[in-house]
Amino acid sequence: MRKLRWGIVGGGEGSQIGFAHRVGTAVEEKYEFVAAALDIDPEKSKAFGTKLGLEPSRAYHNWEEMLLSERDREDKIELVTVATPNNTHFEISKAFLEAGIDVFCEKPLTLTIKEGEELVQLAQERNRVCGVNFGYTGYPMIRQMREMVRKGDLGKIRVIFTQFAGGFMAESSEQDDPRIGWRFDPKKAGVSAVTFDLGSHAMHLACFVTGQKVSRVSSDFAFGVPGRKLEDDSLTAFRLEDGTIGRQWVSGLAFGRIHGLSIQVFGEYGGLRWHQEQPNQLYWTKGKEPTKVLERGAPYLYEPALRAGRVTIGHPEGMPLAFSTLYKDLYEVIASRSRGEKPNALALTYPTFEDGLDMVRVVYAQVESAKKGGLWVVV
Amino acid sequence: MRKLRWGIVGGGEGSQIGFAHRVGTAVEEKYEFVAAALDIDPEKSKAFGTKLGLEPSRAYHNWEEMLLSERDREDKIELVTVATPNNTHFEISKAFLEAGIDVFCEKPLTLTIKEGEELVQLAQERNRVCGVNFGYTGYPMIRQMREMVRKGDLGKIRVIFTQFAGGFMAESSEQDDPRIGWRFDPKKAGVSAVTFDLGSHAMHLACFVTGQKVSRVSSDFAFGVPGRKLEDDSLTAFRLEDGTIGRQWVSGLAFGRIHGLSIQVFGEYGGLRWHQEQPNQLYWTKGKEPTKVLERGAPYLYEPALRAGRVTIGHPEGMPLAFSTLYKDLYEVIASRSRGEKPNALALTYPTFEDGLDMVRVVYAQVESAKKGGLWVVV
Amino acid sequence: MRKLRWGIVGGGEGSQIGFAHRVGTAVEEKYEFVAAALDIDPEKSKAFGTKLGLEPSRAYHNWEEMLLSERDREDKIELVTVATPNNTHFEISKAFLEAGIDVFCEKPLTLTIKEGEELVQLAQERNRVCGVNFGYTGYPMIRQMREMVRKGDLGKIRVIFTQFAGGFMAESSEQDDPRIGWRFDPKKAGVSAVTFDLGSHAMHLACFVTGQKVSRVSSDFAFGVPGRKLEDDSLTAFRLEDGTIGRQWVSGLAFGRIHGLSIQVFGEYGGLRWHQEQPNQLYWTKGKEPTKVLERGAPYLYEPALRAGRVTIGHPEGMPLAFSTLYKDLYEVIASRSRGEKPNALALTYPTFEDGLDMVRVVYAQVESAKKGGLWVVV
Amino acid sequence: MRKLRWGIVGGGEGSQIGFAHRVGTAVEEKYEFVAAALDIDPEKSKAFGTKLGLEPSRAYHNWEEMLLSERDREDKIELVTVATPNNTHFEISKAFLEAGIDVFCEKPLTLTIKEGEELVQLAQERNRVCGVNFGYTGYPMIRQMREMVRKGDLGKIRVIFTQFAGGFMAESSEQDDPRIGWRFDPKKAGVSAVTFDLGSHAMHLACFVTGQKVSRVSSDFAFGVPGRKLEDDSLTAFRLEDGTIGRQWVSGLAFGRIHGLSIQVFGEYGGLRWHQEQPNQLYWTKGKEPTKVLERGAPYLYEPALRAGRVTIGHPEGMPLAFSTLYKDLYEVIASRSRGEKPNALALTYPTFEDGLDMVRVVYAQVESAKKGGLWVVV
Repeated sequence: MRKLRWGIVGGGEGSQIGFAHRVGTAVEEKYEFVAAALDIDPEKSKAFGTKLGLEPSRAYHNWEEMLLSERDREDKIELVTVATPNNTHFEISKAFLEAGIDVFCEKPLTLTIKEGEELVQLAQERNRVCGVNFGYTGYPMIRQMREMVRKGDLGKIRVIFTQFAGGFMAESSEQDDPRIGWRFDPKKAGVSAVTFDLGSHAMHLACFVTGQKVSRVSSDFAFGVPGRKLEDDSLTAFRLEDGTIGRQWVSGLAFGRIHGLSIQVFGEYGGLRWHQEQPNQLYWTKGKEPTKVLERGAPYLYEPALRAGRVTIGHPEGMPLAFSTLYKDLYEVIASRSRGEKPNALALTYPTFEDGLDMVRVVYAQVESAKKGGLWVVV
Repeated sequence: MRKLRWGIVGGGEGSQIGFAHRVGTAVEEKYEFVAAALDIDPEKSKAFGTKLGLEPSRAYHNWEEMLLSERDREDKIELVTVATPNNTHFEISKAFLEAGIDVFCEKPLTLTIKEGEELVQLAQERNRVCGVNFGYTGYPMIRQMREMVRKGDLGKIRVIFTQFAGGFMAESSEQDDPRIGWRFDPKKAGVSAVTFDLGSHAMHLACFVTGQKVSRVSSDFAFGVPGRKLEDDSLTAFRLEDGTIGRQWVSGLAFGRIHGLSIQVFGEYGGLRWHQEQPNQLYWTKGKEPTKVLERGAPYLYEPALRAGRVTIGHPEGMPLAFSTLYKDLYEVIASRSRGEKPNALALTYPTFEDGLDMVRVVYAQVESAKKGGLWVVV
Repeated sequence: MRKLRWGIVGGGEGSQIGFAHRVGTAVEEKYEFVAAALDIDPEKSKAFGTKLGLEPSRAYHNWEEMLLSERDREDKIELVTVATPNNTHFEISKAFLEAGIDVFCEKPLTLTIKEGEELVQLAQERNRVCGVNFGYTGYPMIRQMREMVRKGDLGKIRVIFTQFAGGFMAESSEQDDPRIGWRFDPKKAGVSAVTFDLGSHAMHLACFVTGQKVSRVSSDFAFGVPGRKLEDDSLTAFRLEDGTIGRQWVSGLAFGRIHGLSIQVFGEYGGLRWHQEQPNQLYWTKGKEPTKVLERGAPYLYEPALRAGRVTIGHPEGMPLAFSTLYKDLYEVIASRSRGEKPNALALTYPTFEDGLDMVRVVYAQVESAKKGGLWVVV
Repeated sequence: MRKLRWGIVGGGEGSQIGFAHRVGTAVEEKYEFVAAALDIDPEKSKAFGTKLGLEPSRAYHNWEEMLLSERDREDKIELVTVATPNNTHFEISKAFLEAGIDVFCEKPLTLTIKEGEELVQLAQERNRVCGVNFGYTGYPMIRQMREMVRKGDLGKIRVIFTQFAGGFMAESSEQDDPRIGWRFDPKKAGVSAVTFDLGSHAMHLACFVTGQKVSRVSSDFAFGVPGRKLEDDSLTAFRLEDGTIGRQWVSGLAFGRIHGLSIQVFGEYGGLRWHQEQPNQLYWTKGKEPTKVLERGAPYLYEPALRAGRVTIGHPEGMPLAFSTLYKDLYEVIASRSRGEKPNALALTYPTFEDGLDMVRVVYAQVESAKKGGLWVVV
C-alpha cells in the first residue's frame, strides 16, 4: 500500500501546530512527508526542512517556490497542509487547489465570507478533497458524542452549552507577547479575536456533534484588558436549524482554566458532557439514572469512536493523536478516490471547507449582533 | 446567654427546606424553636408541630393563628422564617413585620417589584432585621471568595461566569409532578420560571461576591420541554455597576448535572472557581501560577471563611450547615441590637430584603430583554 | 412522640467532636439535650453546659457528679455519649452502664482487649443499647455500599483496599501541638498511634461493608517523624473470615491528602469506590461496563441509603449529618425497646461494643505482627 | 543531522505496544524506521513490515533473519527495540547486543535474575546503550516529580505509596482470553504474574523518582480468581536504601479502575501525587499550604519536565508521547557517543538494563517473602 505524499506550508521550528501536524501524519503511518515551506524566513524554511529529513531540493524557501516545483513533478505532493498565519490561508489554499493538490487548511478557513465562498466553489469545481482543521473533532469521545446524537440516544436535542474560555490571553503584559498581540490586531485577526479564534472551535463542535448548522445568533462582545481593539470575551445565544437552543461562552480572560474547551449536549432522554483537558472520558447521563463515565477504548463504544482510538483503554491519548484522526479520514477519502471507489462513510467525517465557511459566516453574524446591541441576526 | 425564640411558617412534614431551616438554627445552638405553622392543612400543621416537640399551644393551625397568638405574648418569637409557597411570601412577611417580628424570608422575596419595594420600605420604617435566604451565601468558601475580591487579591474584576443549570426539570413527565408543575405556572411562579427560581441564586452570588449590583442585562429565554408557559432555559449577558462583564446560564434541562450551581470570577490578577456540589473546595489561580485548591477549615483562609466553618478541615460540610451561617449572622445582629450595640461587620453579611428586591428587579429586566429580542435593558 | 433524654460527657467548648455529637442529635430532632459534663475543668464544664442552654442543675462539674445525680432522677438521661480522652472510655462507659443508662462511646472503645471484653460482657448482662462511634458508617453511600454487598451485586467479594492516610500529623513541629502530641504517647494512646486512631476506622469500614470479621493480619509499622514512640505509618495485609483479601494503608505523613479515608471493594462482578472527602458520590463499576456515579439522595439507591439521607439530591451533606444517622439508629432501637417491640432491621446497623472490641483485637494483632517482622497473626 | 536507523522485533499488526514504539520514534523525528521482524508468523511478519513502508528486503520473516542481514550491512540499524513475548527478551537482546547493536528492551528485561545479570554484564563489556521500557518514566510530570525530589523540595523522603491496581484481569472468563491467559502461566510469565507485570512499573517509578534502590520487602501474594497459578493481587511493604518507607499495592482485580497506576511521595516538607490516567497534572502540597495543581507545559516546571513535553499547556499529551521521551533520551545518548561527546545529563535519565535487573531482583524477593509468610527479605 503506497503512502500518500504529503507536504506542509508553515509550522516552522518551535511551532506547536506544525509539530502536531507532523505527528498527526506520522501516527497514521500512511503519509510520507516529502516537501515543505516551513518558515516565513526563506533560509530558516530551507534549513528546518532539511533538518527534518526532507530531500534538500524539496525543503523549499517559500510556498511559491514549493508550488512551482511540486505541481510539475510526477511524484508531487498529494495533500498539502496550510498552517500559515490566518490572513494567508485564502491565497495559499487557492493556489494549491488550482494546482490540483488536495488541501487541509488550518482554521479559520479565511478571514472573510467572500474568500471562503470562493474557496468552497473552487474546491467543488476542481472536485478536490478539502479539509479544515477543527482538530478537536478527531477525539474519539467527540466522535462517540456525535454518533450517540445520530443514533437518537438522547432523543431530540434541546440545548447545547459550549465554551472555550481559558486564561491564555488574560495577562495585560501579553500585549507585548507576539504570540498574543496579533490576535487583537484587526489586520491579522479579521473582524473578531476570541470569538473567531477560539469560539469557532466550540461552535463547530456544536454543529459537528448535531449534524446541524447555526441559523441565528444574539451576541455580546466585551473587552476585559484595556486597550484591545477586538473582543476578549463574548457570550452568544444561538439556535440551530431545527430550533435547538444554543449557548456559547468564549473568553481569553479566564485565569486558571488551562485550556477551557468543553461541550455539553442535552436532549429529551439524557445529556452528554466532555472537556478537552480530560479528553478520554465522556460523561453520559440517561434520564435520572446514574451518570456513566464512558472511557476511550472501551468495547461498548460506537464504531466511529473505536476507529478513532489508537492505544488500549486506560492509556491516555492526547491532542496530537486527535489530529491524526483527521489525517486518517483524509487518507481514506483520497485513497478511495484514487481507486475509483466510494469512500467509507466514517472517513467522510472530517470538517470540510463548507464547514470552515459556515464558521466564518457565524462569526460575522455574531459581530453584527454584538454591534446591534444583542439583536438576533440570521447567519 | 439567652437563646433567641424562633418560629417558622411553612416547611411541613417531608419538606426539605423546612428541615434545612430547623437544622440551620439547631446547629447554631443559639435558637430555641418555640412556634410554627408548618402546613397549609391545619390539622397536619398542628400535628407536625407537636411531633417536633413544640408546646401544643404554639403548634399552630395556620400562620394567621400564629401571628395573632404570638404578637401578644410576652415570650413571643423574635424571628420568623417564612418558607411558604412563593406567592405568599409578601403577605406573610408583611404581616409579621407589622407585628414587630424580625423576618427571614425564603427567596424570592416577592413575585413583583411593587411588593418587594413595599416590604423593603416597611423593614426600614420598622427598623427590623430582615433577611432573604440566598442560602448558598452561607458556604465558607463563598465567604472566602467574597473576601478575596474585597481584599483585592484578584485586582479589578473583569468577568463573572455563573450558572445554575441542572436536570431537575428535564423530564417531560414531571409536568405531572406537583414539585415541578407549579414552577411553570405563572400564577404561582410569577413572570419567569428557572431564571427566577434558580437564576436569582446565581445572580445574587455574583453580586454577593463582588459587592455590586447588576446594572443592565441582555437575555434569551428558551423553551425546551414542549407545553411549558415559562422558560426552562435562559442565557444572560449582564454588566455590574462598574462595568464588570457578566455571563449567566440557567437551565432545568441539563440532565446529569445533579445540582449545577457554580460561579467563576476572573480579575486582572487571577481567577476563582467554585461549585456547589463540592462546596468545601475553592480553586484559586493567580496569574500563570499553579492553581491552588483552597480547603474549608484551613488556617490560611480569611476570617469570614473561618467564622462560617464548623468542623475540622477534611471533614466535609454540606448545605444544611451553610444555612446555619445565615442564622449565625442573624443571631448576632439581633443580639447586638437587643444589647444596644453595633453588630460586628461580619454578621452584616447576610442577604437583606434589599438584596431580595434587587433580584426581583433583575429578573423583570431579563424578562423584558428576552421579549425585546435580546436588547439590553437597564435594571 | 416523646423525645429521648440525652447527655454527653466530654466535648468541651471548641471541641469539634462535641459539636458534631450535638449536631447529630439535633438534626435527628428526636433527642432532648438535658445533661452534660463537658470539660475536664469543673468550672468550664458547668459554664459551657449552661451556655448551651442546659438547666444549671444539670450542667455538671464532672462526670462523677453527673452520674450520681442522673441515676436517681426519674427523668434521668436515657442515652449518654462518651467523648472523653481515649484512656477514660472504659471507666466512664462502665459506670454509666452499671447505672442502667445506654451508652454511645467514641472510638476506640477501650485501650486494652481486657477492658473491651468487660464492657461487652456488661452490656450483654445489663441488656443495654451500646454503640461505638465509627461515625463514617452513618454516611448514606457507605450504607449503600453495604447493601450492595449484601444483595450480592458484586458477587463474592475478592479484595478490599482501605486507607486512612492524611497529612494531619506530618509536621514535626506538631510534636509540640497538644492536639497531636498525645497520639504518640503510649500512656494516652495505648499500643499504637495511627493504626489505632485512624486505621480502626478504615478497618471497621471493611468489616461494616462486608458484614465480616478480620481473621488474620500481617503488618509493617513504620516511623516517619523522628522521635516518635508509636508508629505514624503502617501497612497491613489481612484476610476476612471467608478468605477475602484485605489491604490497609494508614498514615499520618501524607501531606496534601486532607483527610484521606477511603474504601474500595472488588468482587467477582464489579467494584465500588468511596472517599470520605466527597461522601455524596459512590463509584460503581459492573464488569467492563462504564463506571456509574451513584449520587446520595437518588431514587435508585437502596432503602438503607435513602433512610440515612436528609436533603435532596445535589445538595451535599457532610460529616455532622453522618453522625446523625447513628443517632437515628440508636433512637429507633431504644424507642422500640421502650415500646416492647422489636427494632427494625435497618436501625440495627449502628456499630456496637462488640464491633468496638473487634477493632481493639485487630490492632493488637497488627502490633504483634509488626513486632514479629510481618508474620501473620490470627486476630 | 542524520537520522538514527531504527528497527523493531515484535509488535505485529494490531499490537498496541508495537504501535506505541513506532509513534514514539516518529514523534521524536530523529529516527528512521528501516528494519523489522514484526510477527511470530513469518509471512505476517514480512507482509506487515512491507505495509508499514519498509523496503521489502528489510521487512524480515523473523528476528534471526533480521540479525543475520542487518549485522553485516553498512547501513545497519543502530538501535533495535525488542517487543516480543517476555520469555524471549533475553535471547533476542543478547543476540543483538553481541552483534554490536544498541538495544531498547520491553520490560521485564528477563524472567530470571541470572539472565538479567548476563545481559547487564554483556552491555557493560560491549559498552552499548541499553534501555528498558519502563515507559511511564517518560511522562513530563514524572520527570518533574523526580527533579523536585532531587532538588530537595520535599526534604527527606519519608514514605512512598505506589499502586498499579486495575480491572484488566478481573473477569474470570478472561482465562480463555489469550491476552490474559499467558500472564498466569509460569512458563510464559515467570515466577509472578501481576507483581512482575504491573508491579515492577510501580516499583520502578518509586526508584526512578527517588534515585534509590529497594533494599528489602515484605509481601503478601493473593489469588482472587479461582484456578490461577500465579497471584493476581499483592501487597508489599518495602524500604529503600536510606530507610524510606515504601508501600505497594498491585492488583488485576480492581474493576472500574481503568488503568490504575499511581505514585505518591511524601517528605518532610510536603507531598506529590500523580495518576497515569490524568498524566498532565501533578498535585503538589507544601506543608499545610493549599495543594497546587502543576500543569504539564507550564513555565514554572523544572527543565527535565519541559524537555519531555511537546505541545502547549492545556493540550493533553498521552502515553505514546511518554514513550517518545525515552526515544529522545536514547537518541541523544547515541548521537553524543557517535560524536565522541559526553551525553547531556538529562538524556541519561532513561531506565537502563541495570534498572531492569533491579526490578527482576525485587520481584524475586517479593515472591520469596510471600512464600515465607510475609517475612522481610533482602533484595
